[in-house]
Amino acid sequence: MTVAEKPVHAPIEGFPIADHCLTIGGIAVTRLAERVGSTPFFAYDRGIMTDRVAKLRAALPEGISLHYAMKANPMPAVVTHMAGLVDGLDVASAGEMMTALDTGIDPRDISFAGPGKTDAELARAIAADIVINMESPGEMERIAGIAGIQGVTPKVAIRVNPDFELKTSGMKMGGGPKQFGTDAEKVPDMLKRLAELDLDFYGFHIFAGSQNLREEALFEAQEKTIDLAIRLAGAAPRSPRMVNIGGGLGIPYFPGEKPLNLMQVGEGLNSLMPRAKKGLGAVELVMELGRFLVGPAGLYITRIVDRKISRGRVFLVTDGGLHHQLAASGNFGQVLRKNYPVLIASKADGAGKEEADIVGCLCTPLDRLGDKMALPEGEVGDLVALFQSGAYGLSASPINFLGHPKPLEVLV
Amino acid sequence: MTVAEKPVHAPIEGFPIADHCLTIGGIAVTRLAERVGSTPFFAYDRGIMTDRVAKLRAALPEGISLHYAMKANPMPAVVTHMAGLVDGLDVASAGEMMTALDTGIDPRDISFAGPGKTDAELARAIAADIVINMESPGEMERIAGIAGIQGVTPKVAIRVNPDFELKTSGMKMGGGPKQFGTDAEKVPDMLKRLAELDLDFYGFHIFAGSQNLREEALFEAQEKTIDLAIRLAGAAPRSPRMVNIGGGLGIPYFPGEKPLNLMQVGEGLNSLMPRAKKGLGAVELVMELGRFLVGPAGLYITRIVDRKISRGRVFLVTDGGLHHQLAASGNFGQVLRKNYPVLIASKADGAGKEEADIVGCLCTPLDRLGDKMALPEGEVGDLVALFQSGAYGLSASPINFLGHPKPLEVLV
Repeated sequence: MTVAEKPVHAPIEGFPIADHCLTIGGIAVTRLAERVGSTPFFAYDRGIMTDRVAKLRAALPEGISLHYAMKANPMPAVVTHMAGLVDGLDVASAGEMMTALDTGIDPRDISFAGPGKTDAELARAIAADIVINMESPGEMERIAGIAGIQGVTPKVAIRVNPDFELKTSGMKMGGGPKQFGTDAEKVPDMLKRLAELDLDFYGFHIFAGSQNLREEALFEAQEKTIDLAIRLAGAAPRSPRMVNIGGGLGIPYFPGEKPLNLMQVGEGLNSLMPRAKKGLGAVELVMELGRFLVGPAGLYITRIVDRKISRGRVFLVTDGGLHHQLAASGNFGQVLRKNYPVLIASKADGAGKEEADIVGCLCTPLDRLGDKMALPEGEVGDLVALFQSGAYGLSASPINFLGHPKPLEVLV
Repeated sequence: MTVAEKPVHAPIEGFPIADHCLTIGGIAVTRLAERVGSTPFFAYDRGIMTDRVAKLRAALPEGISLHYAMKANPMPAVVTHMAGLVDGLDVASAGEMMTALDTGIDPRDISFAGPGKTDAELARAIAADIVINMESPGEMERIAGIAGIQGVTPKVAIRVNPDFELKTSGMKMGGGPKQFGTDAEKVPDMLKRLAELDLDFYGFHIFAGSQNLREEALFEAQEKTIDLAIRLAGAAPRSPRMVNIGGGLGIPYFPGEKPLNLMQVGEGLNSLMPRAKKGLGAVELVMELGRFLVGPAGLYITRIVDRKISRGRVFLVTDGGLHHQLAASGNFGQVLRKNYPVLIASKADGAGKEEADIVGCLCTPLDRLGDKMALPEGEVGDLVALFQSGAYGLSASPINFLGHPKPLEVLV
């Protein structure tokens, strides 16, 4: 072969085609659109979430707990479903905490991380008796002060800014100067002060990065995380009950990206377990995952409102756009725009017949959902499905931009 | 001088400092925060908006109307204020149309542009008797069909995708293949069809780009726009009553950018007026502006929640973030993140004493509001002001991201 093949999207799993139409949870997307009553909408498949948790658990060694980071998808029905599958929920605000508590989960299985917690938020978290991942010595003093007023002993963990980073990561959350956590080298001093305060020490939260698709990079970070936890545990007032080793498991969004080999991830972690047990004792090791568990379970469905040809290029103008799926437009952390996987859902098994641009309804050139995609001929009325839309979709998008109604979400 | 000076932000006008504190509309920002009752919040100064409209009108030739593109800032109080200053409002959705109509403005002074208008939106616009900027022949047919059912003759203009672009523009909206409007070369055919339908022809909407800071580039686009309108008018069923020549006037956001010379912009347009009058007769020439009129009138105010030093770098962690001011975080159309102008509002006249990073409260490394800025020492409780936040701020940001409460807005 002399010409490099064009990279393609990883195959999409879990959405079979029946009668030329994409299905979700056994329901044709066209029919689901009738049930929802309006487009655009987000549809999430609970079966795919269940399946992903099961596959991950099967690959991971005994003794690893799973937490769901609900910032990935905070729809209450999704959070409730996930709460029944995992061992804990991670929240990033008092608002998310309310949704998490509504599931009925034990508050001690909820943890709260975030670099800018206000006194009001801390007071609510203390009252709820959840585990607070403290981001700094200053935040620790505020927690102790507020807890004193409430007359309770709050559950706390220390979020550590590690002295390494998760290489080749979509987002680096640790290593170097960061707003997250306390620098690893300052943690012993913080533990000393912690021992003087009326705080119930739970453990450490060490999170190096997210959206990583390289098994070796993940292993390297996990190894360093466990070693760091062992070092820090020596300075703690009591053995940590929990060490949150973060997540970082990515999903393939763009052409050329491949899903992680879970067996390899599991084997890597398994090889670290003896060292963890020896150094940390009967600690609960927690993996915190959001995107990995729910991202592939979601579709963003829009309808074609106009089909136009401008100077030789086909534009399929939809009723959706970046106000609902900002990341798919290439405007949330990406440097160069790349396409999410997309299908004409109502012609799902049609072979690519034309090159078309899929755009949103907003009056801005940023509002692109697919550039020069090979698709069956899309017509007015056809439904378009964007895959990998179950995480950081609706809740991470500027829904009020240009004043369109808020789209619905459905869990099937 | 042998070393190039580091580019700096253009001076900020309209927010005097009194007793070391930034003021807005004569009110100290610290006091305004007490009145609003919570941080973060957006504050807009109606006086600055009035002043900007007056200065622009003084620079522009007679016979140029001004429209406010309310997508820049759809806060109802702002839209009402602007409606009293300008000659018309431009909306981008039926939702925005409702706010525009609530101001009491004459519906014929409202125009509605947007590439993905649904039948439901078109029906509402037709019933409201506003001017619809038609984006394609297909949309024209849908309008005629819906208007027939309602038994009314809708007011329509043709949005043209010009055969040129606005050079060096922040966002290019015309030229080449685009989802906006009808290609200039296809407009004569569309006009022929328009004449067969029961549609009240108002004119043309020709919009080449936005956020431009080069007077010559603006002049070149305006000249080509007027020439194009004259060419197209020859094929119209009647003389156009209105030609919307777009806006494109930018504001300085980043170090090194300078405000436009309005006199130069006005002189350029003035030199085109004889040609426009000769070729278009008693047409109303409309400039449509959003950001230019309201952007510099707005502040985003956050409070410092934590001050931390991580590996030698100072981080001021605020209670705000990209969920309210996405563009300032560098994640809305920018390729490389640059700083908006920022001040410690409660120490506004303090000389720069340290280099600090201003970050938001979200658990993502994308949440940066200022990188390595020279600022007086910010402490917990201090207010931070982001300037140039009156346009594409709150409404263009993912407010639900991580579940924090929606911030308030105040017009002073």
